[in-house]
Amino acid sequence: MAGSTFGNQIKITTWGETHGKGVGVVIDGCPAGLSLKEEDIQVYLDRRKPGQSRFTTKRKESDTVSIWSGVFEGKTTGTPISLIVENKDQRSRDYSAIAGVYRPGHADYTFDQKYGLRDYRGGGRSSGRETVARVAAGAVCAKVLQKLGITLFAYTESIGPITVDAARFDPAQRDGNSLYMPDAKAALKAEAYLEKLIEKKDSAGGTIRCVVKGLPAGIGDPVFDKLDARLSAAMFSIGAVKGVEIGDGFAASKLRGTENNDAFSSEDGRIFKTTNHAGGILGGISDGSDVEIRVAVKPTPSVASIQQTVTKEGIPTEIEIGGRHDPVIVPRAVVVVEAMAAVTILDLLIQNTGSRMSYLEKIYS
Amino acid sequence: MAGSTFGNQIKITTWGETHGKGVGVVIDGCPAGLSLKEEDIQVYLDRRKPGQSRFTTKRKESDTVSIWSGVFEGKTTGTPISLIVENKDQRSRDYSAIAGVYRPGHADYTFDQKYGLRDYRGGGRSSGRETVARVAAGAVCAKVLQKLGITLFAYTESIGPITVDAARFDPAQRDGNSLYMPDAKAALKAEAYLEKLIEKKDSAGGTIRCVVKGLPAGIGDPVFDKLDARLSAAMFSIGAVKGVEIGDGFAASKLRGTENNDAFSSEDGRIFKTTNHAGGILGGISDGSDVEIRVAVKPTPSVASIQQTVTKEGIPTEIEIGGRHDPVIVPRAVVVVEAMAAVTILDLLIQNTGSRMSYLEKIYS
Amino acid sequence: MAGSTFGNQIKITTWGETHGKGVGVVIDGCPAGLSLKEEDIQVYLDRRKPGQSRFTTKRKESDTVSIWSGVFEGKTTGTPISLIVENKDQRSRDYSAIAGVYRPGHADYTFDQKYGLRDYRGGGRSSGRETVARVAAGAVCAKVLQKLGITLFAYTESIGPITVDAARFDPAQRDGNSLYMPDAKAALKAEAYLEKLIEKKDSAGGTIRCVVKGLPAGIGDPVFDKLDARLSAAMFSIGAVKGVEIGDGFAASKLRGTENNDAFSSEDGRIFKTTNHAGGILGGISDGSDVEIRVAVKPTPSVASIQQTVTKEGIPTEIEIGGRHDPVIVPRAVVVVEAMAAVTILDLLIQNTGSRMSYLEKIYS
Amino acid sequence: MAGSTFGNQIKITTWGETHGKGVGVVIDGCPAGLSLKEEDIQVYLDRRKPGQSRFTTKRKESDTVSIWSGVFEGKTTGTPISLIVENKDQRSRDYSAIAGVYRPGHADYTFDQKYGLRDYRGGGRSSGRETVARVAAGAVCAKVLQKLGITLFAYTESIGPITVDAARFDPAQRDGNSLYMPDAKAALKAEAYLEKLIEKKDSAGGTIRCVVKGLPAGIGDPVFDKLDARLSAAMFSIGAVKGVEIGDGFAASKLRGTENNDAFSSEDGRIFKTTNHAGGILGGISDGSDVEIRVAVKPTPSVASIQQTVTKEGIPTEIEIGGRHDPVIVPRAVVVVEAMAAVTILDLLIQNTGSRMSYLEKIYS
Repeated sequence: MAGSTFGNQIKITTWGETHGKGVGVVIDGCPAGLSLKEEDIQVYLDRRKPGQSRFTTKRKESDTVSIWSGVFEGKTTGTPISLIVENKDQRSRDYSAIAGVYRPGHADYTFDQKYGLRDYRGGGRSSGRETVARVAAGAVCAKVLQKLGITLFAYTESIGPITVDAARFDPAQRDGNSLYMPDAKAALKAEAYLEKLIEKKDSAGGTIRCVVKGLPAGIGDPVFDKLDARLSAAMFSIGAVKGVEIGDGFAASKLRGTENNDAFSSEDGRIFKTTNHAGGILGGISDGSDVEIRVAVKPTPSVASIQQTVTKEGIPTEIEIGGRHDPVIVPRAVVVVEAMAAVTILDLLIQNTGSRMSYLEKIYS
Repeated sequence: MAGSTFGNQIKITTWGETHGKGVGVVIDGCPAGLSLKEEDIQVYLDRRKPGQSRFTTKRKESDTVSIWSGVFEGKTTGTPISLIVENKDQRSRDYSAIAGVYRPGHADYTFDQKYGLRDYRGGGRSSGRETVARVAAGAVCAKVLQKLGITLFAYTESIGPITVDAARFDPAQRDGNSLYMPDAKAALKAEAYLEKLIEKKDSAGGTIRCVVKGLPAGIGDPVFDKLDARLSAAMFSIGAVKGVEIGDGFAASKLRGTENNDAFSSEDGRIFKTTNHAGGILGGISDGSDVEIRVAVKPTPSVASIQQTVTKEGIPTEIEIGGRHDPVIVPRAVVVVEAMAAVTILDLLIQNTGSRMSYLEKIYS
Repeated sequence: MAGSTFGNQIKITTWGETHGKGVGVVIDGCPAGLSLKEEDIQVYLDRRKPGQSRFTTKRKESDTVSIWSGVFEGKTTGTPISLIVENKDQRSRDYSAIAGVYRPGHADYTFDQKYGLRDYRGGGRSSGRETVARVAAGAVCAKVLQKLGITLFAYTESIGPITVDAARFDPAQRDGNSLYMPDAKAALKAEAYLEKLIEKKDSAGGTIRCVVKGLPAGIGDPVFDKLDARLSAAMFSIGAVKGVEIGDGFAASKLRGTENNDAFSSEDGRIFKTTNHAGGILGGISDGSDVEIRVAVKPTPSVASIQQTVTKEGIPTEIEIGGRHDPVIVPRAVVVVEAMAAVTILDLLIQNTGSRMSYLEKIYS
Repeated sequence: MAGSTFGNQIKITTWGETHGKGVGVVIDGCPAGLSLKEEDIQVYLDRRKPGQSRFTTKRKESDTVSIWSGVFEGKTTGTPISLIVENKDQRSRDYSAIAGVYRPGHADYTFDQKYGLRDYRGGGRSSGRETVARVAAGAVCAKVLQKLGITLFAYTESIGPITVDAARFDPAQRDGNSLYMPDAKAALKAEAYLEKLIEKKDSAGGTIRCVVKGLPAGIGDPVFDKLDARLSAAMFSIGAVKGVEIGDGFAASKLRGTENNDAFSSEDGRIFKTTNHAGGILGGISDGSDVEIRVAVKPTPSVASIQQTVTKEGIPTEIEIGGRHDPVIVPRAVVVVEAMAAVTILDLLIQNTGSRMSYLEKIYS
């Protein structure tokens, strides 16, 4: 198994490498009857597209998606939706420099250890390019969720030491800067910070937050398929993610029980929590509050500085990574986080339709 | 689906509630030929047993495990191993107080929302008692791993504001105190801190670290079944976990690439990393360094203080939770973390046996 | 993996050997809110109980089922239902005769080849005793189906050369004879036939039919999870099954298209097929007609005659199997077929709840 | 879930409809290091290609496969192999005749019942065209098996009343006639039979046999993932299959135990069965003899004769199916049977690598 399939009721299967003919995804289990056209997906892909600013790789990938199956007369048919993005910019570069040398922070060494060989062109399967397929799948799932009143919003929370200021938080500003920060001032600071790093041949990490609104209470399974367990797997499956928090996360470990517990209240019979330390999940099941996810992204491992490493044969050597690399992964990973959250939540939402006799009776009688 | 099965090649399926006849686990896919007896499992269960100190619930559960199947003449046969722990202490208490009222921080409300009803006795399926089954399964998996030279060590890193001091870190001290801290002095401080919280009818959270040694490079699948993705799902599937980090975790998001990248070096042809910011995982695949996991645990939600909540019908009310509750979950969760890590790693280790033609040739010719 | 889990939305996991402490099953994913008590399950188990006539093994197994989890105040809670049947009759016999010799027609040799060792007491995991667990699970699933208007009826169609006469077919007679034949006259003949085989130290095979009524059209997935594909896997997973047919089965291969196609008709707008060569399944999806399954069961491999075989070491030898064995497996397998069909159909029924946007909207708004 | 993924360790996911842009398959989990080029796959596809004789549809599909990912420098990398066959012959025909009318024997009605809508162009997802993807996947799996000494051979055993004569059976003749019968004389008779059916606007069914040689003993899991259970699911997942037998199949149900049991013998310490009624599988696990599978295929449902049916709205009507249809499905299904058997067997072969401690030790030390 190469672990390229995610989900139970909705299954997404991604394929493709940076330097092959393209990347794609098969979405199996999308409910029939959803209006879907390529533009619905393209808007998501455009959010992760390279070449948009000086902080993203200069590769020119138009990243145009095609629907190859599963949609008929503008509606999903319930059968697998195959989405393909052709790789346009496959300049035949000289990869001999990295073919036999292990780049620090990359998966070169581990792929060789696992498979005995690897596609060394630009990271192959471990390249961020694989996430094109995830974003395409996430766009479809997000559209289903939207029809059910569930929306997702992810953004860059911090880059290196610069963090979005809660007082200035404005969702509308997210798409107004190349870093996807919902705080224009923080974005400016972060841009300046990144400029300096580029000069120093270095790179930055950061954090991403994702908030899910409108998710009904009751979603997620009690033990191993907890909503948070599945979300965290989805997040850690994104390359470069090193930490995940739900709600208060690590800060909760420092709180006392009386501080951390969220009180219940009600209005017109509707029950809700008055605070949301839990991040919308209790016992692995959604509680009706916003689901709040926070993700730590490591700095881009491809840096132009000289680094110590070894060759495939174990001979110590130095490496200086050239080429086109983002000084920070975070901005382009924002939509990937949102996409993976959408896939996960839709999967559990469908899975939940079998949880009560009354649901079955509603459908079958 | 109720999400009670975990793993692909090794599948563990847990069952049981606090107040039923018992809890158990079926381990399917354990390789044949492992020496296994009940004592191997009992030592793990004893590490999470209640009633061991004033910081754990006073319930008396002997938690004695029985092997019901899958072992013959002292060896695993390759068929499912059914392990059962009977519930001894099922005093018929009066649960009417919590039957109709939602405890803050608990899964009462979310279970009702999911299933339309719930077993309200002591948390039912969302009770920490379910982890007995995980620990039993983990003991078996850890024994397989040990035979392959892989060992796991989890411990309490912090309780509330008290953290193990790296300078005093001594693994041998972990089992010498009731808090499973590998630093006797920190343990004393934490005990004092907990005493005060009990007086104040409050509770604490904390963090757990788990280190895996001896795992060969190459384990974990590149995309959705990344070693870290699977480990984090395993960790978040433990009730009360709110955050997971691999290696430097969130701290990595503040580092620069040149700081965070681990250089490769070699000795006698053996390749290794000179630092381990990555926590032993690159691109979702083990890199031969120690795998380092860090987990945030929220404070025990059952506190004796008065809390605001609502009844099942949505009427505001107050609740004062009596009964037997640990002021901190962390110490008893340490072995659960270790167990879940063991199950996850063994699963991926077996999954990896199909990754190369040469492995198949080794077995089938 | 030892393949002891079946199903996706409903997962059943069986465990146990003939001579261990017991056998059991964990049913994960049963919808919450079903009334369930042990008697509901016991009536199914009683149908496969040994010791009921001279054609079933003389072992005395009361086969009393206990519900260990997942039911609260008489209703399923949605969490795993653990059912256990203790092995009462574990006389410590001398198995040395078969420990080192491979019984023809049994799985002794193949288990040794797979695992390198085996539990040789009475067939271990490959014993028919494992089906106790399936029947228990099937009883629960059948009860869910019944609430939705779906019923199953399996019976012995033939034993050796004696076949139920269509003209005399009477469902009410099935439970009136020890062979579960819905034709009392055929049953008498078959009993006489079996008497002779016992004298000759031989055994018989036969066929089982199972009919499912009330299944709505639309159940089953189009490609690999076709209703017939899943049903046939369920049937072949029963030891001793050597063939499966849906509808006309092999006979359809001899028909012409104009003979085999079932015409559609309608009455008051309700569409139905006027014949049912297809056995209720078109393109892997139920079509609203009865689902008709036919299963071939081989003769009991344990015969008292002398047989040629080899020892574990490959030395030719003879074997004469003593002990308590049914001269025909079919009658006791009838309820196993019904049980496996119930599990399969319920699983696909739940799986189907995500097939349309309108179903999701029905549940979530 | 739309059930488009098959397998555990090797997962194949197919997508595509008759009249979309193409059909494809993602093979996930193929071991790294296998030499693979498009020609390896094309030879399999050519065996199911339409337009080869007057007994196959006149559609001209060149069915040329492209490898889009997972192969680097001529070798599999262990990552997903995406294979795509573009649909060339998508003449925009007028489907209005069948858009609103249910063809007998087809999945039109059941798709509508399942999904509420369907792609009515030529069968959409339930078309035989989907099997292109399976054959492509099977070609890859068969190549892995061949490297391990395992070969598969499927052939047309019968068409309508004409059956291959065992005395004239000659594997070399299979590919010498358009019906894939390993008996040239039977093929001539069958061709004459089909000519007559075409005149009568009718169609024929038939049977396919598949023999697997060289499979080591020990493959298949004891309970639900029995080799025969998985093979039969694979076979029934092929549209038009109505019956599956292993070894003697239904005939075994008429045999006595002493006739049906296969004696064991040995030569130079190597153990083998002297007969093979069991078809190479005992207790769900391969026994080292040839695995023998037999499959019943119904007659092509698309016949040119007038048939009774209803419209989508339930109004009785007649239908006369025009267009390009094979008068018999069997010959083109032969390679599909072989392909699905290859995928199934490779999956279980890889799955088995975790069955013994000694296998793990062989790989990890």
